[in-house]
This record gives sequence, structure tokens and C-alpha cells, in this order.
Amino acid sequence: MEKSHENVEAFGWAARDTSGVLSPFNFSRRVTGEKDVQFKVMYCGICHSDLHQLKNEWSNSIYPMVPGHEVVGVVTEVGSKVEKFKIGDKVGVGCLVGSCRKCENCDNDLENYCRDQIMTYNGVYTDGIPTYGGYSDIMVTNEHYVVHWPENLPMEAAPLLCAGITTYSPLRYYGLDKPGMHIGVVGLGGLGHMAVKFAKAFGTKVTVISTSVSKIDEAIDRLGADSFLVSRDPDQMQGAAGSLDGIIDTVSAIHPLLPLINLLKTHGKLVMVGAPEKPLELPVFPLLLGRKLVAGSAIGGMKETQEMVDFAAKHNITPDVEVVPTDYVNTALERLLKSDVKYRFVLDIGNTLNKN
Amino acid sequence: MEKSHENVEAFGWAARDTSGVLSPFNFSRRVTGEKDVQFKVMYCGICHSDLHQLKNEWSNSIYPMVPGHEVVGVVTEVGSKVEKFKIGDKVGVGCLVGSCRKCENCDNDLENYCRDQIMTYNGVYTDGIPTYGGYSDIMVTNEHYVVHWPENLPMEAAPLLCAGITTYSPLRYYGLDKPGMHIGVVGLGGLGHMAVKFAKAFGTKVTVISTSVSKIDEAIDRLGADSFLVSRDPDQMQGAAGSLDGIIDTVSAIHPLLPLINLLKTHGKLVMVGAPEKPLELPVFPLLLGRKLVAGSAIGGMKETQEMVDFAAKHNITPDVEVVPTDYVNTALERLLKSDVKYRFVLDIGNTLNKN
Repeated sequence: MEKSHENVEAFGWAARDTSGVLSPFNFSRRVTGEKDVQFKVMYCGICHSDLHQLKNEWSNSIYPMVPGHEVVGVVTEVGSKVEKFKIGDKVGVGCLVGSCRKCENCDNDLENYCRDQIMTYNGVYTDGIPTYGGYSDIMVTNEHYVVHWPENLPMEAAPLLCAGITTYSPLRYYGLDKPGMHIGVVGLGGLGHMAVKFAKAFGTKVTVISTSVSKIDEAIDRLGADSFLVSRDPDQMQGAAGSLDGIIDTVSAIHPLLPLINLLKTHGKLVMVGAPEKPLELPVFPLLLGRKLVAGSAIGGMKETQEMVDFAAKHNITPDVEVVPTDYVNTALERLLKSDVKYRFVLDIGNTLNKN
Repeated sequence: MEKSHENVEAFGWAARDTSGVLSPFNFSRRVTGEKDVQFKVMYCGICHSDLHQLKNEWSNSIYPMVPGHEVVGVVTEVGSKVEKFKIGDKVGVGCLVGSCRKCENCDNDLENYCRDQIMTYNGVYTDGIPTYGGYSDIMVTNEHYVVHWPENLPMEAAPLLCAGITTYSPLRYYGLDKPGMHIGVVGLGGLGHMAVKFAKAFGTKVTVISTSVSKIDEAIDRLGADSFLVSRDPDQMQGAAGSLDGIIDTVSAIHPLLPLINLLKTHGKLVMVGAPEKPLELPVFPLLLGRKLVAGSAIGGMKETQEMVDFAAKHNITPDVEVVPTDYVNTALERLLKSDVKYRFVLDIGNTLNKN
């Protein structure tokens, strides 16, 4: 709510139009308000949703756009009423930098479901100025939307702040975190590989479900999944029918739900965290016959995001990342579009963002 | 599991082919086994699913078919090991007359989700003989699948045994039974009108959602709903966006889910109890943004069915029925197909089934 009477110079990389090509960009941030934390960005993950928004594929893009909502940095300044942070603290900012703080969801630490939430980039702040994300040298954020970054967690693990919480939260909320349960994970990208790691950390048995048998080794050997199903193999899928307590479905392409619903036990839960742009086909009879459900989940609230990074630090859970220099960003985006990364690009902003 | 060495004469009305036309039918029932209850049928409801199965619309019909799975009668004989019933007791039989009794669902009083459940008609019993339903003079049923019919509950309230439990169970299981909640009911037929009555008895506020404004008076004045929405009126639907904790959707025709999902609050639950034959379109993004879910539910287990009829007796909840003589059955089926009944036909078997 603080009013900015002057601004602070900032520098980053921005898209100027729907080509989605990023180039260096001089802009300004607000001065640090009473409840704000200013921090130097060290690392920022490249999320698949950045691709969509850079190219206005969700029809709500504001240009110039500085993407980035998996941001880790070090505090450089705090406002007079900041309580949780001091200069030098390692901090993280995820997908949100604001919400109404008055609604039932905000009261219940579910800022991520507040209707007036403000996205970290491609949003509009309370002062009317567009929000700019973490592909930039500094950020200024209300402390409520900043988490403490645990000491023993590498700062390159920034993708926890979106890919991590997006998979951690539904495993918790839908009760799919009980040791001995059997959990399926559909899709092995930025979200899917985190779902496997968290589900394993909760003590569940994990089956990766993928269209391609080529991912079997990475699923089992690299990520520690217990088994693997090729979704295009009807015999394999039939053999595993009725075996899963829950499924985290990370696929955002159009895909059939019936084969996944059939994998569920009675009372099984299919939780969507990917967001296909068109409706999927929902067969109703199979839901009825097993009292099954199809549900959604989106990132997590601030309290749970802090809990998630603390859990990750305690259990040594980090995303598999390819750290790249900032000026590699356009190449990284092209490769991401082809799924040519295991599993997340992270921009090394702190060491490589050079103001030209 | 009992073996029948001889049989008992029975008489009812059966369909002989996919025309679905019923005619008088002489057949036999097994003799009363150790754990069996034999009872004289007094009333039997006509369920919408009878229509589908009579005409083989679910492609699994066995002819001749004696339909009827909302059956209330009076015990005439009990087997030597029957513990719960004696001659003269009023009893009810719903959709199930058997299950495996060994699986996890059976262990948890969820015989309705047992994979080996035996339907009351159009099923095959453990002795290999087809099951015949309640459009008949007597039934012989294992006591586990028989409920006590409360003294003060009219026997014509037989539709509780399918329409009742089908709506009671999801309101309970999905936690939509808390006073002060706001529940939507889609469709005002046999299932829908029971959903309204149970939801009101639980102390929730109830909104009926229907394609036609013509049902507003019956929804509010006759059934006691609190409000009414015309689903084809976008302004009305938008005005009620985000207002419902849960919805019981009883419609089995193809219909759009998005307008219903939009009516839900964060964490709202859309529970399907009708069974559209083709898949419905499921928009995923709206599920994610409110952590909403779409779920299914099918009838109820035996323990819960007993609980439901006891609850109905205690709260004076009965279906609105049109009691008709048995030989009116074909006309009743024609009228049911046109939704020309408020809200369930019940055959007066006890007084009107005449063996020709």
C-alpha cells in the first residue's frame, strides 16, 4: 500500500512483444517501503509458464515483460516496519507478491487462492505499476510474500518456489503424503520431477507415468521412482489398474483422463497441476463407480511455501537444474520449448547479469 | 453361497427384449438359505436406471429382466442362521444383493464399491442364476443386504433405497452436511428432490439449479429450497459465482460443467451422481484456481443405507411419490421417460400384483 515518491534504477531482461524474445531492459523499482524487502537477485528459474506469457498465449500479457517467479537473492535493504528480515538474509520470492489480505483465503494463509492476488510479473501492483519478475538485478517485495531461504539449501534451487510448491501443496492438501501410499506422477518435466522427489520424501511408493519408455531410466535411476508405466501401452496400464491412491498430473497438453482414472483405487484422487488450455474429456461413470475425484491445485500460500523450503532443506530435496548465464536466456527458452532440459533452467543472475 | 436344491414359485413383470415392454412373468426364486430372508414385496420404486436397462442402453442387459431395486416388504421366512430379522419385520432391499465380503471396500462397509458386487436385478448371483428385482411378489435375499424399515416410515417411501442413498451418501462423505453450508442441487427429478430434502435436513442452505424457470415454485414452495438459479441465464449464474460449498449434480444428460464449477467457492466440490453416457468437457484451469474438485459417488454401503433410512424416519423425510397399480407399469415408464412424474413412481405390488 506504500506510495512511491521516487524510484530506484533496475535492470533486467524483458520481452517487448509477442515474439517473446528477451533483450536488456532498463526500468525502475519502487523505493523500499515500510514493509518492503529489497534484495539482490542471485538466481531465477525459467518456468514453463514464462514461455506462455512471453508470447501472450494466455492473452493477458503486459509489455515490456520481465519474467521470473522463482527468485532467490540476498537482502540489501529493509523497510522500517519489516519484522522478519535483515540485510544479508537469503530470501526467496515465488509466484505472488500481493493479495488482498482481507478475504477468507488470505485469512487462512491461502493467498494463492485470493481473487485479488498480484502475480510476481505480468501483474499490476497496488500502485498501478506493472510487476516485473526475477530476470533482473534487484527486487522490492512486501515481506509477507518473501520466504527465508534456509542456509543449507543451494540458492540455485530457486525452482522450488514454483515447481516445488506446486507439487508439494497438493500432495499435502489431498492427503497423498502418507507413508506406504502409492502415488503416480504424470509427466517428467520441471513439475513432475519435483513431485517424484517430494512423494518419495513423504515415504510413498512412486510410479512415473509417461508417454515415452525412453524416460524409464531417468525416472528410476536418476529420480528414485519405484516403477514406470508407459501410458500408451494399454496392457501395462491395465495391469496397474486400481493400484494408485493418487496421481499428480503435471501435463499441460491435451491428454486422456480415463486411463489415469482407471489407475486409481477406490477413493483415488487425480490432481491436475498442469493447465491445458482446452477442456479435457471427463468420463463420469468411472468416477462414480470408485468414488474417485479429479481436482486442481495451484502453487501454495506463503506459510506453506516457507514450510516447503524448510522441508526441502531438511530432506536435501533440490530440483535438478542447468544453471546458465543470463544472456543465454533466449536459447534456454527455445530449448525449454523442446523439453530439452533436465529439468529446469536457472539463470545465474548474480554472477552474469551485466548492464550494457 | 447357499446351494438351491429346489426353488420357490415367484411371479412378477419382466421385459423380454430391448423393446423394454413389461409383461407378466412366472419364474422361481431360490429356497430361503441359512442366511436368507424371504419377504413379500409391498412397494417397489421405478428408477430411471430401470428405463436404461430395460432397453439395454447400457449394453449389459439379461432377458427376461424383472427390474426393481427400491423394494420394501414384509418378512415371510428367515433362514436358520439369520440374526437380524424375524417373520413380520418390515424390510428394504436397494441396489445390491451381494458382494465379495473379502475386499477392502467390503471390510469398510462399502459393498457398493466392491468390484464383485451383485446388482439386485440384471446381475448374476453366486449360484449362476440371474438376479430378479422387486417388480415381483417375493424376494429372497441374504440378510446382509437387507435393511430394517423403520416403523414410522411409510413403505411407499421405497425410493429412499436408491434415490435416497445416492444423494445422502455424497452429502455425508464429501462433508457437505454441515449446518450453514450452501449446497447446490442440479436437476429436480427422483435424485434431485431427495438431495434437496436431505441437504435441508442437514441444516444447509439449498439452491436448486435447473435449465427451466418453470421449476422455481416446486423447488421453493414444495421442496423447501432456499433459492433457485436458471442455469441458462448467464447473468443469474454470474451473480451467484463463488457462492456454493458443494453441488450435487443429478443430471445424466450431457451438460456443461464450467458454469457449475464457477458457482463453487474455493475448495468447492462438484459431485456427480448422474451418469452421462458420454464424457463431459472438463475445464482444468478453473479447478486449479480455486482448488476445486469434480467427484463421483454411487449409492451407498449397507451400513450407511440403514443409517440413511433411520435418519429419514427420524426427520420425516420421504420421497414425493405417485403410487400406481402394478399393471400401470408400462405407462409409468413412458411417463418417466418424459419426466412426467413428481418425482418417483412406486408400484403398489402388495395390493395390485395379480397372478393371471
